[in-house]
Amino acid sequence: MATAPAFNTLQLSRPLPLDCGQELAGVEIAFETYGELAADKSNAILICHALTGDQYVASEHPVTGKPGWWERTVGPGKPIDTDRFHVICANVIGSCMGSTGPASIADDGAPYAMRFPVLTIRDMVRGLVGLLDELGIDQLHTVVGGSMGGMQALSLAANFPERAARVLAIATTARHSAQNIAFHEVGRQAIMADPNWRGGNYYGDEKTPDAGLSVARMAAHITYLSEAGLTDKFGRRLQDRDAKSFGFDADFQVESYLRYQGSGFTQRFDANSYLYITRAMDYFDLAEEHGGKLADAFAGHGRDSGARFCVISFDTDWLYPTAESRHIVHALNAAGAPVSFVELSAPYGHDSFLLDVPALDRVIEGFLR
Amino acid sequence: MATAPAFNTLQLSRPLPLDCGQELAGVEIAFETYGELAADKSNAILICHALTGDQYVASEHPVTGKPGWWERTVGPGKPIDTDRFHVICANVIGSCMGSTGPASIADDGAPYAMRFPVLTIRDMVRGLVGLLDELGIDQLHTVVGGSMGGMQALSLAANFPERAARVLAIATTARHSAQNIAFHEVGRQAIMADPNWRGGNYYGDEKTPDAGLSVARMAAHITYLSEAGLTDKFGRRLQDRDAKSFGFDADFQVESYLRYQGSGFTQRFDANSYLYITRAMDYFDLAEEHGGKLADAFAGHGRDSGARFCVISFDTDWLYPTAESRHIVHALNAAGAPVSFVELSAPYGHDSFLLDVPALDRVIEGFLR
Repeated sequence: MATAPAFNTLQLSRPLPLDCGQELAGVEIAFETYGELAADKSNAILICHALTGDQYVASEHPVTGKPGWWERTVGPGKPIDTDRFHVICANVIGSCMGSTGPASIADDGAPYAMRFPVLTIRDMVRGLVGLLDELGIDQLHTVVGGSMGGMQALSLAANFPERAARVLAIATTARHSAQNIAFHEVGRQAIMADPNWRGGNYYGDEKTPDAGLSVARMAAHITYLSEAGLTDKFGRRLQDRDAKSFGFDADFQVESYLRYQGSGFTQRFDANSYLYITRAMDYFDLAEEHGGKLADAFAGHGRDSGARFCVISFDTDWLYPTAESRHIVHALNAAGAPVSFVELSAPYGHDSFLLDVPALDRVIEGFLR
Repeated sequence: MATAPAFNTLQLSRPLPLDCGQELAGVEIAFETYGELAADKSNAILICHALTGDQYVASEHPVTGKPGWWERTVGPGKPIDTDRFHVICANVIGSCMGSTGPASIADDGAPYAMRFPVLTIRDMVRGLVGLLDELGIDQLHTVVGGSMGGMQALSLAANFPERAARVLAIATTARHSAQNIAFHEVGRQAIMADPNWRGGNYYGDEKTPDAGLSVARMAAHITYLSEAGLTDKFGRRLQDRDAKSFGFDADFQVESYLRYQGSGFTQRFDANSYLYITRAMDYFDLAEEHGGKLADAFAGHGRDSGARFCVISFDTDWLYPTAESRHIVHALNAAGAPVSFVELSAPYGHDSFLLDVPALDRVIEGFLR
């Protein structure tokens, strides 16, 4: 990863208790906000980001110079309307865009690296709630997230039921499946097999585990797209050539695209953060946290007493397929929580939540109305 | 890969023309046979193996000591009955179990390594047909294969229509999709990122690219199993522990299983062979080879003039889903070739063709009757 830019950060005044039993003191949370906070603080929306996301939801990424990752959804007059709402987006702890993570400096003056405690999604949410405490926001208008962001939204609803009046969970799951864990494990093994990883102690060195991180990203990236979407986008078309090379260059466009995705990713992401965040996702099982029954996770949301929920899935998402959303909805029903659920049709697979799906805009607008 | 055992090999008397334009002279084909060849040579069945398969279809693997990879299907009284048939199974060229491949010695006395020509599935089939020529077998009773073996069976039918009276293609495709190519490219990049790969020149060295090959195998292995199969087999169960470790050990059984699959594979397979064979599979597009129309690939099989075909898919195979088999069947129909087609229900994903699926036994038996 390139040199870190200056982030807008805030230090939590209280140590953060973690699921592993440790406490993390002096936690920094890096965040961005968009739109004015109302005097009564009733219009705050917390957007939770995905595995490789960050706080730059609607503004230029300081490392890549690319537009915010959800600019099509967040901004003035957009589905999450910053003329109306005060949007907060914070980098999760364990990540590498300014919030405390494995690259942060420990008490002994050296980076934590693999001494950083293994986190859970609930720990990330504790960090976000710590930020809301510092900002004096007792209750969010809405907490929203896609993918791992959706896990955080559900975890916040389960563990801090009074902190959000609405919960919008998109393309997500209440637990990581064996297949989800398997794909992440491939990525972690690719990173750890890179001799430049050196047990995680590569900070400050010239050589970083970019090759391993790139392979991890390539494997994960395939799971974000649908088979049909890949076929539509690339098929078997060749890259910058008329015939096969009978070699090991990137003959096919899809190979070239994947290599680009892999190498580009290493410019903006830290390999150890990738290990920690995928581990947190694999550990995620909201039912297990609440005695084994998912409905019990939402016990604080009985009718007329809790948040309103909206759950959205995509028909081509094979990473967190619709069955996973249905599982969440059944649990919310069993808990008596008001929930609307829609499976949207979109060709892009899991990544649909980030892409041009007008029906998604309409559902979000309707839910925030 | 461990030291090579002694293989039963035969040298082709004629050089092999390859799709890349080169010729390969002195090609060795390693093969095993089971059952007696009839005096009129009418009872020979050629079994084509998959990507990481070999000629030990029904006898102990000399490196691993494990039973043959299709012993449940091939043997006396089994669906492919060696009391009745003479079964031939040969290691494909490009592989590493005795047939000529990247580890073979080139004219200059050094291993080919990456100087080995890039092969196609048709080139592998040319090697197999060369073997049949040497054995004096003009026409097979049946050519059969699953996965990449099915590609070879189809390629043999298309390019040597007179060489097989029956063609049995299981869990396969007539072309590699963008998603298929993408998964293979992840594996190749993992191997090439391993510093022990050294541009393929690791033969005779103590260090071989096992870490990269292991990651490649892990990624591929996920695609061989169904999501439901993985959930049934592993779910989120922990490995040899009662609680999560909050570390990066293989906490989950599925992680432990994948690591075992990856590391075990490196004992029996050569990383360069993995590069070459995956490349051949990615290049496979039977229609493209025949002017762009798949039906034209089977032009030699008009009704009453060619082979009988049987195509089998599995409902949980997401690597080569049923739609790919249907595509083959439509082309055979258009060519006027006699074909039976069945989609079998089995929980194991792509690997179903290797596992306990009684309905598969019955279809094979019926087709060979």
